[in-house]
Amino acid sequence: MGLVVQKYGGSSVADAEGIKRVAKRIVDAKKTGHQVVVVVSAMGDTTDELIDLAGQVSPIPSGREFDMLLTAGERIAMALLAMAIKNLGHEAQSFTGSQAGVITDSVHNKARIIDVTPGRIRTALDEGNIAIVAGFQGVSQEKKDITTLGRGGSDTTAVALAAALNAEVCEIYTDVDGVFTADPRVVKKARKIDWISFEDMLELASSGSKVLLHRCVEYARRYNIPIHVRSSFSGLQGTWVSNQPQGDRTVEQAIISGVAHDTSEAKITVVGVPDKPGEAAKIFRAIADNQINIDMVVQNVSAASTGLTDISFTLPKAEGRKAIDALEKTRSVVEFDSLRYDDQIAKISLVGAGMKTNPGVTAGFFEALSDAGVNIELISTSEIRISVVTRADEVDQAVRAVHSAFGLDSESDEAVVYGGTGR
Amino acid sequence: MGLVVQKYGGSSVADAEGIKRVAKRIVDAKKTGHQVVVVVSAMGDTTDELIDLAGQVSPIPSGREFDMLLTAGERIAMALLAMAIKNLGHEAQSFTGSQAGVITDSVHNKARIIDVTPGRIRTALDEGNIAIVAGFQGVSQEKKDITTLGRGGSDTTAVALAAALNAEVCEIYTDVDGVFTADPRVVKKARKIDWISFEDMLELASSGSKVLLHRCVEYARRYNIPIHVRSSFSGLQGTWVSNQPQGDRTVEQAIISGVAHDTSEAKITVVGVPDKPGEAAKIFRAIADNQINIDMVVQNVSAASTGLTDISFTLPKAEGRKAIDALEKTRSVVEFDSLRYDDQIAKISLVGAGMKTNPGVTAGFFEALSDAGVNIELISTSEIRISVVTRADEVDQAVRAVHSAFGLDSESDEAVVYGGTGR
Repeated sequence: MGLVVQKYGGSSVADAEGIKRVAKRIVDAKKTGHQVVVVVSAMGDTTDELIDLAGQVSPIPSGREFDMLLTAGERIAMALLAMAIKNLGHEAQSFTGSQAGVITDSVHNKARIIDVTPGRIRTALDEGNIAIVAGFQGVSQEKKDITTLGRGGSDTTAVALAAALNAEVCEIYTDVDGVFTADPRVVKKARKIDWISFEDMLELASSGSKVLLHRCVEYARRYNIPIHVRSSFSGLQGTWVSNQPQGDRTVEQAIISGVAHDTSEAKITVVGVPDKPGEAAKIFRAIADNQINIDMVVQNVSAASTGLTDISFTLPKAEGRKAIDALEKTRSVVEFDSLRYDDQIAKISLVGAGMKTNPGVTAGFFEALSDAGVNIELISTSEIRISVVTRADEVDQAVRAVHSAFGLDSESDEAVVYGGTGR
Repeated sequence: MGLVVQKYGGSSVADAEGIKRVAKRIVDAKKTGHQVVVVVSAMGDTTDELIDLAGQVSPIPSGREFDMLLTAGERIAMALLAMAIKNLGHEAQSFTGSQAGVITDSVHNKARIIDVTPGRIRTALDEGNIAIVAGFQGVSQEKKDITTLGRGGSDTTAVALAAALNAEVCEIYTDVDGVFTADPRVVKKARKIDWISFEDMLELASSGSKVLLHRCVEYARRYNIPIHVRSSFSGLQGTWVSNQPQGDRTVEQAIISGVAHDTSEAKITVVGVPDKPGEAAKIFRAIADNQINIDMVVQNVSAASTGLTDISFTLPKAEGRKAIDALEKTRSVVEFDSLRYDDQIAKISLVGAGMKTNPGVTAGFFEALSDAGVNIELISTSEIRISVVTRADEVDQAVRAVHSAFGLDSESDEAVVYGGTGR
């Protein structure tokens, strides 16, 4: 038997009962003969409460101290979890990110992992212990200060440890049964996906699927660590994310993995840009210089009469103000008539390997939307994804229409996802 | 200007307001030109809440994990305090016990400090920072595990850092104005003591005074670090504990420092012990072998007729059961008629340097008690202390009588304590 890394989120260890339930699950894994490393997040709302406290003493908490504060949450959860496991008669030791050898850069609040040296974890495992590791935290290589990894940090900790320890699998326990063909809150007939490739998962993550963050999937793909996303409340098999599908099915069967949607973005249109080399470059340089990440970019064919074109792009709503200001400042170097800002948009994406080799997909996607009376404002595609921007208030009907059109609904026999009856 | 170590207890940083108030006080000290190192305890009831959580997941929390859990409390407090200070425009950095170089043995939950290597603190100070250090915690030299120092740990951390950094003074901030001539809750006329010697303070601490723990005073005496016990709520001067009195007064003036009482002990009497060499030794060996600390010991003169004697001693009530069991087990090797256990006792102690050279003191002490109609059950004395055991329900009147008899009452002109009008 090999080594398994399990990660439990805050909702799984929200209270003493949750911690005891998780402890049982961990012990069960240990009993199967595996070496078990557990990465845990802070209990329930602990982190939010600490952030609130920080806000009460300082309007702009400093990076270093903010990290020192937040990391206390995981520390509490991991110590309690280790106690609960010992109470079940098994040996467990908890480790801070620093003790676990999670080495990061010095960018507080959103540090990147630059090395993992899990010597103490190895020793603890070899001595028969279950190792409990604080997620979301590390220690800076340079100053030896406590750092935090930012959003999705605990998932990334788990995958990074799985890679460093050469684990069989990284199990991400959460409060849903796995990754679905669409957001179940929007599409009642959405199904759990049994297996999905790293590439499709990356596209779903960057298209609005919240279950796994892009960063953690990217890390897992780089080191080829299979991820098993599953519920900590049920014993069901969840969704496997890996290079190879589980079981005997072959990748060719998979055309469509799922439909994702995202209402967190806004659209900016730069109107009346001279259609000559370098203009677009200047615009996006101005955006990039302000550390603003943009998503879709579309440039219309310019009107021959005017020689002017419009350039549209989407970006997180939170960055909208900053982007508009940055563009206004470029008026000196970039000619354009006006700026349009629109935050009432939604992005709907269809994701699936082999899409490009199935000509029908794109057409079917647009037909489904038009049949649903949904107007398309922007289009962008990749090897395995088609995304469109629509009005925000049309997103639900649009997602349902596409989900149904591609046979993803759970009643449908044409379902292309793997054994979608896993629920 | 030199270096000052300040320690703030949990009641001083119970909430955001308290943290901000403490931050101002720290900044004021920094403004006077001092280098400032602050040792902080966990906020208000944090530690109790964590202990309660631990109890919910495990009846017998393990030492290592219990320490990992509890130390999160100081971590939260110190990070918030550092943020609050930065918010006042001053530089501050927080350090865990491990980062501060507090090296301990491996005895979890009550570790002893074996070395202090404050290299990072020095650097932070030299760079103009105020250093905030987590009290109560360290790291074990052997296994590099997080440890806690047990009761009074934060005070000990402060004194240990003051010694290692060669500080001018260790200021212990608390919720009272200082050390009093008696417990103000019992004696309304009790007065704040302006200065007291290490020796007298040690006797008061071991006689029931709660303001400073014996351990911390002992450490301060060994390294000759002056302690200034004061309120974090008022700006008043508190009580100085040192080798030399502050100001121009001389030690000779001091006869009586104060009256302490303790109702946490019980009395065990071993009745009918053969009055021959070695019997007492066997009894106390049995007690010692069970790691039970005893306090007063008294052996009556044996009755010539029987050749039997009674041996009485006091010990913490919590240890009573264990002691009785241990003694019962010795019946095979030690002859005695019976055991008497009594937990309705109180200990009253009169503490003051030069007592032995003032013959009237002992007599005056007993006279005061008899005038108050208080019966004495046991007596023990040291160079600078007289202690008696009485009935628990007589303790208040006994303390008041003694306090008044030795001119400690605040109205009295004969007051012997230093400038008792300091309040």
